[in-house]
Amino acid sequence: MTEVRSLHPAPDQYAYAFGGREPLLTVAPGTVVELSTEDCFAGNVRGVDDLPSRVCTFPFLNPVTGPIAVEGAEVGDTLAVHFVEIVPSRDWAASSTFPHFGALTTTHATAMLHPALEERVWIYELDAATGTCRFRARRSDLTVELPMDPMHGTVGVAPAAGEVTMSITPAAHGGNMDTPEMRAGVTAYFPVNVPGGMLSIGDGHARQGEGEVCGTAVEAAMHTVVVVDLVKGQAPVSPRIESDGFLMTTGSARPLEDAYRISQLDLVGWTGSLLGLEELDAYQLVSQAGLAPAGNVVDTNYTMVGKLPKSVLGEAKAYDGLHEVLRGVAAEYLASR
Amino acid sequence: MTEVRSLHPAPDQYAYAFGGREPLLTVAPGTVVELSTEDCFAGNVRGVDDLPSRVCTFPFLNPVTGPIAVEGAEVGDTLAVHFVEIVPSRDWAASSTFPHFGALTTTHATAMLHPALEERVWIYELDAATGTCRFRARRSDLTVELPMDPMHGTVGVAPAAGEVTMSITPAAHGGNMDTPEMRAGVTAYFPVNVPGGMLSIGDGHARQGEGEVCGTAVEAAMHTVVVVDLVKGQAPVSPRIESDGFLMTTGSARPLEDAYRISQLDLVGWTGSLLGLEELDAYQLVSQAGLAPAGNVVDTNYTMVGKLPKSVLGEAKAYDGLHEVLRGVAAEYLASR
Amino acid sequence: MTEVRSLHPAPDQYAYAFGGREPLLTVAPGTVVELSTEDCFAGNVRGVDDLPSRVCTFPFLNPVTGPIAVEGAEVGDTLAVHFVEIVPSRDWAASSTFPHFGALTTTHATAMLHPALEERVWIYELDAATGTCRFRARRSDLTVELPMDPMHGTVGVAPAAGEVTMSITPAAHGGNMDTPEMRAGVTAYFPVNVPGGMLSIGDGHARQGEGEVCGTAVEAAMHTVVVVDLVKGQAPVSPRIESDGFLMTTGSARPLEDAYRISQLDLVGWTGSLLGLEELDAYQLVSQAGLAPAGNVVDTNYTMVGKLPKSVLGEAKAYDGLHEVLRGVAAEYLASR
Amino acid sequence: MTEVRSLHPAPDQYAYAFGGREPLLTVAPGTVVELSTEDCFAGNVRGVDDLPSRVCTFPFLNPVTGPIAVEGAEVGDTLAVHFVEIVPSRDWAASSTFPHFGALTTTHATAMLHPALEERVWIYELDAATGTCRFRARRSDLTVELPMDPMHGTVGVAPAAGEVTMSITPAAHGGNMDTPEMRAGVTAYFPVNVPGGMLSIGDGHARQGEGEVCGTAVEAAMHTVVVVDLVKGQAPVSPRIESDGFLMTTGSARPLEDAYRISQLDLVGWTGSLLGLEELDAYQLVSQAGLAPAGNVVDTNYTMVGKLPKSVLGEAKAYDGLHEVLRGVAAEYLASR
Repeated sequence: MTEVRSLHPAPDQYAYAFGGREPLLTVAPGTVVELSTEDCFAGNVRGVDDLPSRVCTFPFLNPVTGPIAVEGAEVGDTLAVHFVEIVPSRDWAASSTFPHFGALTTTHATAMLHPALEERVWIYELDAATGTCRFRARRSDLTVELPMDPMHGTVGVAPAAGEVTMSITPAAHGGNMDTPEMRAGVTAYFPVNVPGGMLSIGDGHARQGEGEVCGTAVEAAMHTVVVVDLVKGQAPVSPRIESDGFLMTTGSARPLEDAYRISQLDLVGWTGSLLGLEELDAYQLVSQAGLAPAGNVVDTNYTMVGKLPKSVLGEAKAYDGLHEVLRGVAAEYLASR
Repeated sequence: MTEVRSLHPAPDQYAYAFGGREPLLTVAPGTVVELSTEDCFAGNVRGVDDLPSRVCTFPFLNPVTGPIAVEGAEVGDTLAVHFVEIVPSRDWAASSTFPHFGALTTTHATAMLHPALEERVWIYELDAATGTCRFRARRSDLTVELPMDPMHGTVGVAPAAGEVTMSITPAAHGGNMDTPEMRAGVTAYFPVNVPGGMLSIGDGHARQGEGEVCGTAVEAAMHTVVVVDLVKGQAPVSPRIESDGFLMTTGSARPLEDAYRISQLDLVGWTGSLLGLEELDAYQLVSQAGLAPAGNVVDTNYTMVGKLPKSVLGEAKAYDGLHEVLRGVAAEYLASR
Repeated sequence: MTEVRSLHPAPDQYAYAFGGREPLLTVAPGTVVELSTEDCFAGNVRGVDDLPSRVCTFPFLNPVTGPIAVEGAEVGDTLAVHFVEIVPSRDWAASSTFPHFGALTTTHATAMLHPALEERVWIYELDAATGTCRFRARRSDLTVELPMDPMHGTVGVAPAAGEVTMSITPAAHGGNMDTPEMRAGVTAYFPVNVPGGMLSIGDGHARQGEGEVCGTAVEAAMHTVVVVDLVKGQAPVSPRIESDGFLMTTGSARPLEDAYRISQLDLVGWTGSLLGLEELDAYQLVSQAGLAPAGNVVDTNYTMVGKLPKSVLGEAKAYDGLHEVLRGVAAEYLASR
Repeated sequence: MTEVRSLHPAPDQYAYAFGGREPLLTVAPGTVVELSTEDCFAGNVRGVDDLPSRVCTFPFLNPVTGPIAVEGAEVGDTLAVHFVEIVPSRDWAASSTFPHFGALTTTHATAMLHPALEERVWIYELDAATGTCRFRARRSDLTVELPMDPMHGTVGVAPAAGEVTMSITPAAHGGNMDTPEMRAGVTAYFPVNVPGGMLSIGDGHARQGEGEVCGTAVEAAMHTVVVVDLVKGQAPVSPRIESDGFLMTTGSARPLEDAYRISQLDLVGWTGSLLGLEELDAYQLVSQAGLAPAGNVVDTNYTMVGKLPKSVLGEAKAYDGLHEVLRGVAAEYLASR
């Protein structure tokens, strides 16, 4: 029987970085963890007048829940995280522009003489019954119902080389990749860089567009259930994600073409190893069969996702079918709850 | 009754550039044009021993069919092209690596000390009955059936400022955007930069992955049917595409984040104007509802696509419902054929 | 005795592109050409109230003088241009911000939601006696005397592949590289892409900073004297420049690191071939001895310059000492004038 | 009388990161510190057969000496470091290519299918008497004498937000900027992000080219003397450098144009504040008077330098003339030694 553990941090227990922190929880591989996460504003934006630059204090942005240490995880291993469930814990969510943040504005890196864009907050109503979140325009009466598609923007482990990295940065350790692919039903794979791996999760989104162009998604506190597991060795160079339909790789870097290159090179290598393909043959196959959506084009690194339909793989299974195993664990957990 | 015209260039009639060429055909707005296109190798790669660098002669790469002048098209207008049908004209297609071309290799721009990757050709069998193209590995026996999804990599008009641009370059005039979204059933919108607009089409792909990572797709000669139409004024800054389900914008630039910026800024503006949204409200809505797949990350400019589900638009219609009108023209043409 | 020719275009004879134009002058290799160039505003900005967006008409920006055909120049040859003299033809010059142009502002490529920066004109007084140009602030009384250092922002030949490229674009054919290294006393080398090479020169600057950050330099009409010569074969991949003290290479591309890569790879290759060094040995030597100033970071491509002090070369001479020969021709011309 | 302190770390006392470490030394503002630094290979590359990938152990690369806490330094202050002397402590130095590192090779970020370039070591003889370092080719007999120009590639303080950053990364806290401008005689200014500032210095180079194209310079252990001082408030957004002739700013980011933007925006702001210029007037002046050499185009962030000749400033002095004061302290120290 699968062990079930809980992790519900007190307000002062959230972390704002990956690395350099003692575990809040230590679990055996295969454990189900029920956890709660705060939104990227640390819950401080509750209405349209709560401008983030006033109610949030740098660097206390983008809190993450964790770290969770996995017993037996050694450097070079692969930490697997299966998302069983991601459910908003409130009936509203918030989004905003933020000075010097976003893809269509001057930022600290793409530094310009323009003043910052106006800071503005949008509050979304989340309707669990209809599975929608309601956009409400601020300068007109328009409302738009969008399908809910809950996910976590920030999932990762402690970085290599003893680094401590702000939770808003995505890189080889994962972190703030902000891809909508990180939804319930997928298994994500991370390299273990320190003993225990040290998984942290945060930045729930009721939904987000690809690229997250304005810099924030439909930011929501979440109740989330994951299965945490371990694969010995095989650490990926950058996080991977597997859904029922797709193998996915990620690259987080700047410029955006380098993020693309990292994700596609890993997709070529992964595809090649699963199908026994010579390298250029795998390059050719991915070139015709792969997808390449943007994750984020706003964070301190940008993220691209490489996707290959599993139909291409025939009978081959990634990680010896671990995703299917974890699907089973999730089903069992949900049935028994 | 819709007029139907044909354009089947003789081998020496293909163009290899946008701009600077007399029309091969002049049509009234609303005309159906049946045309044939050669593949990007000008038909010279017919087997795995036909290495492109030997059988193709620079700059005679990526032939396009056209230009087609549209009567009454003036600078500042919008040339609309509805793709009725895109059908491979042979039962095979070709792909290859090409020295100093592709996303995971040194190129003339991302110039490095590495020797070029091996040049290699793959021949795909196209099966019209099953709608598949068969990948056949060159260094093992693996074959993979991929769904056919015919499209044109290169569609565009004469550039502004009297420029003559190689057909392998995508930019504000369209050109070699290499997005799989340019398939049958969509309407593409281009800015008119010179009298007549001067539409050219080429570079058919039996299918391609997003990003076209190795530099070439499943390259196929095509029989293609389009409806060519004209919208007075309203020239987009960069080509747009509309399908039954999505509004799409494109940006072609380097680095890839600039391609993303161009496409997203236009998507924000387009969405805002259709919904009467103030600019930041539109930015917010696109941020949550938009998609952002890569077009190509290999050509002389990179292309990103911005996509908005038309479900977001409610009753609003782009270009007063022109896409639906052209859908009707296409249906009538197909029924009468 | 060196032949001396003149080229003083009438207003309607200026070109605004490289490629696609008949020569205004045809000369034998080794000819001295006295020519005049207009400023990048086509002479239309004459005072601080002459905002470029009002007095200039796109695409009639950045006029160039030429093309000059060189007898015997064949594809693959090298066109050498020695700058004997670059002298402002008026006692004033103009600079400006320009909407959506410059490194610290949203542009058509780095597309953002910000409105354009204010458009503003500065008029510089040029003092030939003291060799200075006087900056005069527009919002205060400050004036600053800057040393004159006249140069041409735009020098190039017809592009390959039949392309016609706006004169504001720098690329492998040269064009609007906007590097202050293009001053009197240097010899520039260009690839011949079409018979005759088709040299054009424009965009004189009384001086400019590296990067040309606001988008325009101290823009001045010029009286310029060049020696035009020909080297058979040896076409460089991108323009090169030689001064008495330095070998220089250029790369024009986006992102800026690709411009750097192109320039440095050529500098490694050039250094290696002149010193008989194996490739990695040349890479190492350039890594320690080379300089890398920005040319422009504002144009449609960015330009980086690679520089190697000729002291590193010992007795080795680029192009068999052609620069010294042309120095001699220049001296003779100046003495005889 | 100026206090003089020493800091000569034992081998196990070197740090490999900025942030997260207790000070090795605490000094009052104005203190002279004599310190020693190891080379970037931690002294393990001593001959051409000592390939870095074999004799060095990740992440123990690029050791830095420090941190040095400055009494009274509070968040938002400016830590000033004047370089009195930088002298190689051995009569040789080392350089190398390194797998997946350098500007003209595939890297972990610019990820490609190419195998790594050959790893090779070069040993330079340093001659204090002639002030030269001797390049010796590995695949031929060529030697080249290059002027010595000792500098530190890595100088910085603890980052903001509690981050711990590998010493090979340059960013807003300084770090591995790898600009040859960081030589004896300059004063560098850093933002104080944590109490004490926590200055560390390493990565001495007997000389380096701009861009450091192969990834390593002429790497040398150093005996270095600095004056460490404090300016209350005025923390720069990114490190600044002042020499007798120039104000300099730095930007460290990717792509390279963003590094350029950061450095130029700060140069515009600094110039404007010193001369009382309105922003666009300062933009214009820097555009004509500024220089923009590359620092590095190889590290995890790239670095560009903005330079303004102090002749432009008239009587205005940065930081109330602190550089001149520290010049005086240095002279006094050297005279008294």
